[in-house]
Amino acid sequence: MATMMVTMFTHLLVISIISLVLYWLINFREGFALTSPVKMKIFNLHPLLMVLGFIIFSGEAMIIYKAIPARRQALKVMHLILHLIALGSGIFGVYTVFKFHNELNIPHMYTLHSWIGLSTISLFGLQWLLGFATFLFPGAESTTRAKIAPWHIFFGVVIFLMAIVTAETGLTEKFIFLKLKLGQEALVVNFIGILILLYGIFVGLTVALPLRRK
Amino acid sequence: MATMMVTMFTHLLVISIISLVLYWLINFREGFALTSPVKMKIFNLHPLLMVLGFIIFSGEAMIIYKAIPARRQALKVMHLILHLIALGSGIFGVYTVFKFHNELNIPHMYTLHSWIGLSTISLFGLQWLLGFATFLFPGAESTTRAKIAPWHIFFGVVIFLMAIVTAETGLTEKFIFLKLKLGQEALVVNFIGILILLYGIFVGLTVALPLRRK
Repeated sequence: MATMMVTMFTHLLVISIISLVLYWLINFREGFALTSPVKMKIFNLHPLLMVLGFIIFSGEAMIIYKAIPARRQALKVMHLILHLIALGSGIFGVYTVFKFHNELNIPHMYTLHSWIGLSTISLFGLQWLLGFATFLFPGAESTTRAKIAPWHIFFGVVIFLMAIVTAETGLTEKFIFLKLKLGQEALVVNFIGILILLYGIFVGLTVALPLRRK
Repeated sequence: MATMMVTMFTHLLVISIISLVLYWLINFREGFALTSPVKMKIFNLHPLLMVLGFIIFSGEAMIIYKAIPARRQALKVMHLILHLIALGSGIFGVYTVFKFHNELNIPHMYTLHSWIGLSTISLFGLQWLLGFATFLFPGAESTTRAKIAPWHIFFGVVIFLMAIVTAETGLTEKFIFLKLKLGQEALVVNFIGILILLYGIFVGLTVALPLRRK
Protein backbone atom coordinates (compact mmCIF):
# COMPACT_ATOMS: atom_id res chain seq x y z
CA MET A 1 0.00 0.00 0.00
CA ALA A 2 2.74 2.45 1.00
CA THR A 3 4.75 1.25 -2.00
CA MET A 4 1.76 1.86 -4.29
CA MET A 5 1.35 5.40 -2.97
CA VAL A 6 5.04 6.10 -3.54
CA THR A 7 5.08 4.74 -7.10
CA MET A 8 1.87 6.63 -7.92
CA PHE A 9 3.38 9.89 -6.64
CA THR A 10 6.51 9.13 -8.68
CA HIS A 11 4.33 8.84 -11.80
CA LEU A 12 2.67 12.15 -11.00
CA LEU A 13 6.16 13.66 -10.85
CA VAL A 14 6.89 12.17 -14.28
CA ILE A 15 3.78 13.83 -15.74
CA SER A 16 4.71 17.18 -14.16
CA ILE A 17 8.29 17.00 -15.42
CA ILE A 18 7.23 16.14 -18.98
CA SER A 19 4.66 18.96 -19.02
CA LEU A 20 6.97 21.58 -17.56
CA VAL A 21 9.98 20.71 -19.77
CA LEU A 22 7.79 20.87 -22.91
CA TYR A 23 6.19 24.12 -21.73
CA TRP A 24 9.64 25.60 -21.11
CA LEU A 25 11.27 24.54 -24.39
CA ILE A 26 8.27 25.37 -26.61
CA ASN A 27 6.82 28.41 -24.88
CA PHE A 28 9.92 30.23 -23.55
CA ARG A 29 12.60 28.74 -25.83
CA GLU A 30 12.75 28.14 -29.58
CA GLY A 31 11.28 24.64 -29.91
CA PHE A 32 13.07 21.75 -31.63
CA ALA A 33 14.81 20.86 -34.88
CA LEU A 34 17.69 18.60 -35.86
CA THR A 35 18.71 20.90 -38.72
CA SER A 36 17.92 24.59 -38.61
CA PRO A 37 19.46 28.05 -39.01
CA VAL A 38 18.12 28.70 -35.48
CA LYS A 39 20.86 26.69 -33.76
CA MET A 40 19.12 26.84 -30.38
CA LYS A 41 16.45 24.51 -31.80
CA ILE A 42 19.18 21.89 -32.10
CA PHE A 43 20.36 22.57 -28.57
CA ASN A 44 16.83 22.24 -27.20
CA LEU A 45 16.73 18.60 -28.26
CA HIS A 46 19.46 18.00 -25.66
CA PRO A 47 17.45 18.74 -22.46
CA LEU A 48 14.38 17.16 -24.10
CA LEU A 49 16.11 13.84 -24.82
CA MET A 50 18.15 13.76 -21.61
CA VAL A 51 15.25 14.49 -19.27
CA LEU A 52 12.20 13.03 -21.04
CA GLY A 53 14.25 10.16 -22.47
CA PHE A 54 17.26 9.28 -20.38
CA ILE A 55 16.17 10.24 -16.87
CA ILE A 56 12.45 9.49 -17.02
CA PHE A 57 12.85 6.11 -18.74
CA SER A 58 15.71 4.91 -16.55
CA GLY A 59 13.78 5.91 -13.42
CA GLU A 60 10.71 4.06 -14.70
CA ALA A 61 12.88 1.03 -15.46
CA MET A 62 14.10 1.04 -11.85
CA ILE A 63 10.71 1.30 -10.16
CA ILE A 64 9.03 -1.25 -12.38
CA TYR A 65 9.71 -4.07 -9.88
CA LYS A 66 7.62 -2.24 -7.29
CA ALA A 67 5.12 -0.54 -9.60
CA ILE A 68 3.86 -3.45 -11.70
CA PRO A 69 2.63 -6.76 -10.26
CA ALA A 70 3.92 -8.97 -13.09
CA ARG A 71 6.05 -12.14 -13.28
CA ARG A 72 9.74 -11.73 -12.50
CA GLN A 73 10.93 -12.69 -15.98
CA ALA A 74 8.53 -10.22 -17.63
CA LEU A 75 9.69 -7.45 -15.29
CA LYS A 76 13.33 -8.18 -16.14
CA VAL A 77 12.63 -7.84 -19.86
CA MET A 78 10.70 -4.58 -19.32
CA HIS A 79 13.51 -3.28 -17.07
CA LEU A 80 15.99 -4.03 -19.83
CA ILE A 81 13.91 -2.50 -22.62
CA LEU A 82 13.13 0.72 -20.72
CA HIS A 83 16.83 1.10 -19.93
CA LEU A 84 17.65 0.50 -23.60
CA ILE A 85 15.24 3.28 -24.62
CA ALA A 86 16.87 5.50 -21.97
CA LEU A 87 20.35 4.69 -23.28
CA GLY A 88 19.40 5.29 -26.92
CA SER A 89 17.73 8.55 -26.03
CA GLY A 90 20.75 9.55 -23.91
CA ILE A 91 23.24 8.84 -26.69
CA PHE A 92 21.08 10.76 -29.19
CA GLY A 93 20.80 13.59 -26.66
CA VAL A 94 24.59 13.80 -26.30
CA TYR A 95 24.89 13.79 -30.10
CA THR A 96 22.55 16.79 -30.42
CA VAL A 97 24.61 18.96 -28.06
CA PHE A 98 27.86 18.01 -29.85
CA LYS A 99 26.17 18.91 -33.16
CA PHE A 100 25.08 22.24 -31.66
CA HIS A 101 28.62 22.98 -30.42
CA ASN A 102 30.12 22.04 -33.79
CA GLU A 103 27.80 24.30 -35.76
CA LEU A 104 28.59 27.28 -33.51
CA ASN A 105 32.28 26.44 -32.88
CA ILE A 106 31.76 26.11 -29.13
CA PRO A 107 34.40 23.91 -27.44
CA HIS A 108 33.29 20.50 -26.13
CA MET A 109 33.63 18.95 -22.69
CA TYR A 110 34.97 21.83 -20.62
CA THR A 111 32.22 21.96 -17.97
CA LEU A 112 31.59 19.83 -14.89
CA HIS A 113 28.17 19.10 -16.43
CA SER A 114 29.80 17.48 -19.46
CA TRP A 115 32.34 15.56 -17.37
CA ILE A 116 29.75 14.06 -15.01
CA GLY A 117 27.30 13.57 -17.88
CA LEU A 118 29.66 11.63 -20.11
CA SER A 119 30.83 9.53 -17.14
CA THR A 120 27.18 8.79 -16.35
CA ILE A 121 26.25 7.64 -19.82
CA SER A 122 29.42 5.52 -20.16
CA LEU A 123 28.82 3.83 -16.80
CA PHE A 124 25.15 3.41 -17.76
CA GLY A 125 26.11 1.55 -20.95
CA LEU A 126 28.58 -0.63 -19.02
CA GLN A 127 26.02 -1.38 -16.31
CA TRP A 128 23.45 -2.31 -18.98
CA LEU A 129 25.84 -4.75 -20.67
CA LEU A 130 26.93 -6.32 -17.36
CA GLY A 131 23.31 -6.60 -16.23
CA PHE A 132 22.26 -8.17 -19.53
CA ALA A 133 25.09 -10.72 -19.43
CA THR A 134 24.60 -11.56 -15.74
CA PHE A 135 20.83 -11.64 -15.36
CA LEU A 136 19.46 -12.44 -18.82
CA PHE A 137 21.77 -13.84 -21.47
CA PRO A 138 23.78 -16.03 -21.09
CA GLY A 139 23.03 -15.38 -17.38
CA ALA A 140 25.18 -16.34 -14.41
CA GLU A 141 24.36 -19.16 -11.98
CA SER A 142 21.61 -18.37 -9.52
CA THR A 143 24.02 -18.11 -6.54
CA THR A 144 26.25 -15.69 -8.47
CA ARG A 145 23.21 -13.67 -9.56
CA ALA A 146 22.05 -13.40 -5.96
CA LYS A 147 25.52 -12.20 -4.96
CA ILE A 148 25.73 -9.64 -7.77
CA ALA A 149 22.14 -8.33 -7.46
CA PRO A 150 22.75 -5.90 -4.53
CA TRP A 151 25.77 -4.43 -6.35
CA HIS A 152 23.75 -4.12 -9.55
CA ILE A 153 21.10 -2.24 -7.58
CA PHE A 154 23.63 -0.07 -5.70
CA PHE A 155 25.55 0.97 -8.80
CA GLY A 156 22.29 1.38 -10.70
CA VAL A 157 21.10 3.88 -8.08
CA VAL A 158 24.50 5.64 -8.11
CA ILE A 159 24.44 6.02 -11.91
CA PHE A 160 20.82 7.23 -11.81
CA LEU A 161 21.69 9.82 -9.14
CA MET A 162 24.68 10.90 -11.24
CA ALA A 163 22.18 11.56 -14.04
CA ILE A 164 20.13 13.69 -11.62
CA VAL A 165 23.26 15.66 -10.64
CA THR A 166 24.04 16.15 -14.33
CA ALA A 167 20.54 17.47 -15.00
CA GLU A 168 20.76 19.94 -12.10
CA THR A 169 24.14 21.26 -13.26
CA GLY A 170 22.84 21.45 -16.84
CA LEU A 171 19.80 23.49 -15.79
CA THR A 172 22.10 25.73 -13.72
CA GLU A 173 24.39 26.33 -16.72
CA LYS A 174 21.47 27.17 -18.97
CA PHE A 175 19.95 29.45 -16.31
CA ILE A 176 23.15 31.48 -16.04
CA PHE A 177 23.94 31.50 -19.77
CA LEU A 178 20.41 32.94 -20.28
CA LYS A 179 21.11 35.49 -17.49
CA LEU A 180 17.77 34.64 -15.87
CA LYS A 181 16.92 36.41 -12.61
CA LEU A 182 13.56 36.69 -10.92
CA GLY A 183 11.14 36.14 -13.81
CA GLN A 184 8.66 33.63 -15.22
CA GLU A 185 11.22 31.55 -17.09
CA ALA A 186 13.58 31.48 -14.09
CA LEU A 187 10.78 30.01 -11.99
CA VAL A 188 9.94 27.43 -14.65
CA VAL A 189 13.59 26.30 -14.96
CA ASN A 190 14.04 26.13 -11.18
CA PHE A 191 10.82 24.17 -10.71
CA ILE A 192 11.97 21.69 -13.36
CA GLY A 193 15.13 21.30 -11.25
CA ILE A 194 13.15 20.76 -8.05
CA LEU A 195 10.82 18.23 -9.72
CA ILE A 196 13.77 16.28 -11.15
CA LEU A 197 15.38 16.24 -7.69
CA LEU A 198 12.13 14.94 -6.15
CA TYR A 199 11.92 12.32 -8.91
CA GLY A 200 15.44 11.18 -7.99
CA ILE A 201 14.50 10.96 -4.30
CA PHE A 202 11.26 9.07 -4.98
CA VAL A 203 12.87 6.60 -7.37
CA GLY A 204 15.51 6.01 -4.66
CA LEU A 205 12.76 5.55 -2.07
CA THR A 206 10.90 3.08 -4.31
CA VAL A 207 14.07 1.03 -4.76
CA ALA A 208 14.69 1.07 -0.98
CA LEU A 209 11.17 -0.10 -0.13
CA PRO A 210 10.72 -3.86 0.39
CA LEU A 211 9.80 -5.98 -2.64
CA ARG A 212 6.40 -7.67 -2.85
CA ARG A 213 7.28 -11.13 -4.09
CA LYS A 214 4.85 -12.89 -6.45
CA MET B 1 38.15 -5.47 5.58
CA ALA B 2 36.23 -4.23 2.54
CA THR B 3 34.55 -1.67 4.78
CA MET B 4 37.94 -0.50 6.08
CA MET B 5 39.25 -0.04 2.54
CA VAL B 6 36.15 1.97 1.61
CA THR B 7 36.32 4.26 4.65
CA MET B 8 40.08 4.75 4.13
CA PHE B 9 39.51 5.74 0.51
CA THR B 10 36.75 8.09 1.67
CA HIS B 11 39.24 9.78 4.01
CA LEU B 12 41.74 10.13 1.17
CA LEU B 13 38.97 11.88 -0.78
CA VAL B 14 38.44 14.22 2.18
CA ILE B 15 42.13 15.16 2.19
CA SER B 16 42.08 15.76 -1.57
CA ILE B 17 38.94 17.89 -1.40
CA ILE B 18 40.30 20.04 1.46
CA SER B 19 43.62 20.55 -0.36
CA LEU B 20 42.07 21.36 -3.71
CA VAL B 21 39.42 23.76 -2.34
CA LEU B 22 42.07 25.68 -0.34
CA TYR B 23 44.41 25.71 -3.36
CA TRP B 24 41.59 27.06 -5.54
CA LEU B 25 40.33 29.77 -3.18
CA ILE B 26 43.78 30.98 -2.09
CA ASN B 27 45.82 30.53 -5.27
CA PHE B 28 43.31 31.33 -8.03
CA ARG B 29 40.77 33.37 -6.06
CA GLU B 30 41.11 36.18 -3.54
CA GLY B 31 41.37 34.31 -0.24
CA PHE B 32 39.07 34.94 2.75
CA ALA B 33 37.76 37.75 4.93
CA LEU B 34 34.53 38.44 6.77
CA THR B 35 34.87 42.21 6.27
CA SER B 36 36.81 43.60 3.35
CA PRO B 37 36.58 46.06 0.46
CA VAL B 38 37.40 43.06 -1.75
CA LYS B 39 33.88 41.61 -1.55
CA MET B 40 34.92 38.35 -3.20
CA LYS B 41 36.89 37.51 -0.04
CA ILE B 42 33.54 37.43 1.77
CA PHE B 43 32.02 35.25 -0.94
CA ASN B 44 34.94 32.80 -0.78
CA LEU B 45 34.02 31.92 2.80
CA HIS B 46 30.82 30.42 1.35
CA PRO B 47 32.34 27.50 -0.61
CA LEU B 48 34.95 27.07 2.13
CA LEU B 49 32.38 26.66 4.92
CA MET B 50 29.88 24.67 2.85
CA VAL B 51 32.37 22.15 1.50
CA LEU B 52 35.04 21.89 4.23
CA GLY B 53 32.47 22.39 7.00
CA PHE B 54 28.99 21.26 6.00
CA ILE B 55 29.67 18.49 3.47
CA ILE B 56 32.91 17.02 4.87
CA PHE B 57 31.72 16.96 8.50
CA SER B 58 28.28 15.55 7.76
CA GLY B 59 29.82 12.83 5.57
CA GLU B 60 32.28 11.99 8.36
CA ALA B 61 29.42 11.89 10.85
CA MET B 62 27.62 9.36 8.64
CA ILE B 63 30.53 6.97 8.11
CA ILE B 64 31.65 7.01 11.74
CA TYR B 65 29.62 3.88 12.53
CA LYS B 66 31.67 1.93 10.00
CA ALA B 67 34.99 3.80 10.34
CA ILE B 68 35.60 3.72 14.10
CA PRO B 69 35.36 0.56 16.24
CA ALA B 70 33.94 2.26 19.36
CA ARG B 71 30.98 1.60 21.66
CA ARG B 72 27.54 2.39 20.21
CA GLN B 73 26.76 5.16 22.69
CA ALA B 74 30.11 6.89 22.01
CA LEU B 75 29.52 6.67 18.26
CA LYS B 76 26.07 8.23 18.65
CA VAL B 77 27.51 11.19 20.52
CA MET B 78 30.28 11.65 17.94
CA HIS B 79 27.68 11.37 15.13
CA LEU B 80 25.65 14.10 16.80
CA ILE B 81 28.61 16.41 17.45
CA LEU B 82 30.05 16.09 13.94
CA HIS B 83 26.59 16.87 12.51
CA LEU B 84 26.31 19.85 14.85
CA ILE B 85 29.66 21.21 13.59
CA ALA B 86 28.40 20.64 10.03
CA LEU B 87 25.14 22.48 10.77
CA GLY B 88 26.91 25.41 12.46
CA SER B 89 29.36 25.67 9.60
CA GLY B 90 26.51 25.41 7.07
CA ILE B 91 24.47 28.18 8.72
CA PHE B 92 27.55 30.42 8.91
CA GLY B 93 28.30 29.58 5.27
CA VAL B 94 24.79 30.63 4.21
CA TYR B 95 25.21 33.84 6.23
CA THR B 96 28.42 34.75 4.38
CA VAL B 97 26.79 34.53 0.95
CA PHE B 98 23.80 36.63 2.11
CA LYS B 99 26.28 39.19 3.49
CA PHE B 100 28.12 39.18 0.15
CA HIS B 101 24.84 39.68 -1.77
CA ASN B 102 23.77 42.48 0.55
CA GLU B 103 27.02 44.40 0.19
CA LEU B 104 26.87 44.23 -3.61
CA ASN B 105 23.07 44.54 -3.93
CA ILE B 106 22.76 41.15 -5.62
CA PRO B 107 19.27 39.61 -5.23
CA HIS B 108 18.93 36.56 -2.96
CA MET B 109 17.47 33.14 -3.62
CA TYR B 110 16.81 33.26 -7.36
CA THR B 111 18.90 30.24 -8.41
CA LEU B 112 18.22 26.51 -8.25
CA HIS B 113 21.43 26.27 -6.18
CA SER B 114 19.94 28.54 -3.51
CA TRP B 115 16.57 26.76 -3.54
CA ILE B 116 18.04 23.27 -3.14
CA GLY B 117 20.67 24.57 -0.71
CA LEU B 118 18.25 26.25 1.67
CA SER B 119 15.93 23.21 1.54
CA THR B 120 18.91 21.02 2.37
CA ILE B 121 20.03 22.99 5.39
CA SER B 122 16.46 23.32 6.72
CA LEU B 123 15.83 19.58 6.38
CA PHE B 124 19.26 18.95 7.91
CA GLY B 125 18.34 20.98 11.01
CA LEU B 126 14.98 19.20 11.28
CA GLN B 127 16.60 15.78 10.88
CA TRP B 128 19.16 16.67 13.56
CA LEU B 129 16.45 17.68 16.05
CA LEU B 130 14.32 14.61 15.32
CA GLY B 131 17.38 12.36 15.61
CA PHE B 132 18.42 13.95 18.88
CA ALA B 133 14.95 13.60 20.40
CA THR B 134 14.45 10.04 19.14
CA PHE B 135 17.83 8.43 19.68
CA LEU B 136 19.45 10.42 22.49
CA PHE B 137 17.35 12.70 24.66
CA PRO B 138 14.73 12.00 25.88
CA GLY B 139 14.94 9.05 23.44
CA ALA B 140 12.09 6.87 22.20
CA GLU B 141 11.47 3.29 23.31
CA SER B 142 13.83 0.74 21.82
CA THR B 143 11.15 -0.76 19.52
CA THR B 144 10.24 2.69 18.21
CA ARG B 145 13.91 3.53 17.71
CA ALA B 146 14.42 0.33 15.72
CA LYS B 147 11.42 1.24 13.56
CA ILE B 148 12.58 4.82 12.97
CA ALA B 149 16.28 4.00 12.40
CA PRO B 150 15.99 2.95 8.71
CA TRP B 151 14.00 6.14 7.96
CA HIS B 152 16.57 8.23 9.82
CA ILE B 153 19.29 6.63 7.68
CA PHE B 154 17.31 6.95 4.43
CA PHE B 155 16.45 10.62 4.91
CA GLY B 156 19.96 11.28 6.22
CA VAL B 157 21.39 9.93 2.97
CA VAL B 158 18.83 11.91 0.93
CA ILE B 159 19.72 15.18 2.69
CA PHE B 160 23.44 14.48 2.31
CA LEU B 161 23.02 13.80 -1.41
CA MET B 162 20.99 17.02 -1.69
CA ALA B 163 24.03 18.79 -0.24
CA ILE B 164 26.19 17.15 -2.93
CA VAL B 165 23.76 18.30 -5.65
CA THR B 166 23.87 21.81 -4.17
CA ALA B 167 27.69 21.82 -4.24
CA GLU B 168 27.77 20.70 -7.88
CA THR B 169 25.28 23.39 -8.96
CA GLY B 170 27.22 25.97 -6.91
CA LEU B 171 30.51 25.08 -8.60
CA THR B 172 28.74 25.19 -11.97
CA GLU B 173 27.37 28.69 -11.24
CA LYS B 174 30.77 29.98 -10.16
CA PHE B 175 32.44 28.37 -13.19
CA ILE B 176 30.11 30.16 -15.60
CA PHE B 177 30.08 33.48 -13.71
CA LEU B 178 33.91 33.42 -13.96
CA LYS B 179 33.59 32.58 -17.70
CA LEU B 180 36.10 29.75 -17.27
CA LYS B 181 36.87 27.65 -20.34
CA LEU B 182 39.77 25.29 -20.89
CA GLY B 183 42.38 26.60 -18.41
CA GLN B 184 44.10 25.72 -15.15
CA GLU B 185 41.37 27.11 -12.89
CA ALA B 186 38.61 25.41 -14.91
CA LEU B 187 40.32 22.08 -14.34
CA VAL B 188 40.73 22.75 -10.61
CA VAL B 189 37.04 23.67 -10.20
CA ASN B 190 35.88 20.65 -12.20
CA PHE B 191 38.12 18.28 -10.27
CA ILE B 192 36.71 19.65 -7.01
CA GLY B 193 33.28 18.79 -8.43
CA ILE B 194 34.35 15.26 -9.39
CA LEU B 195 35.97 14.67 -5.97
CA ILE B 196 32.85 15.87 -4.13
CA LEU B 197 30.71 13.56 -6.30
CA LEU B 198 33.01 10.63 -5.47
CA TYR B 199 32.84 11.57 -1.79
CA GLY B 200 29.03 11.44 -2.01
CA ILE B 201 29.16 8.01 -3.68
CA PHE B 202 31.67 6.61 -1.16
CA VAL B 203 29.78 7.93 1.86
CA GLY B 204 26.66 6.30 0.38
CA LEU B 205 28.57 3.05 -0.16
CA THR B 206 29.89 3.10 3.43
CA VAL B 207 26.35 3.54 4.76
CA ALA B 208 25.10 0.68 2.54
CA LEU B 209 27.82 -1.74 3.69
CA PRO B 210 26.90 -4.08 6.56
CA LEU B 211 27.59 -2.91 10.12
CA ARG B 212 30.19 -4.67 12.24
CA ARG B 213 28.40 -5.01 15.58
CA LYS B 214 30.49 -4.71 18.75
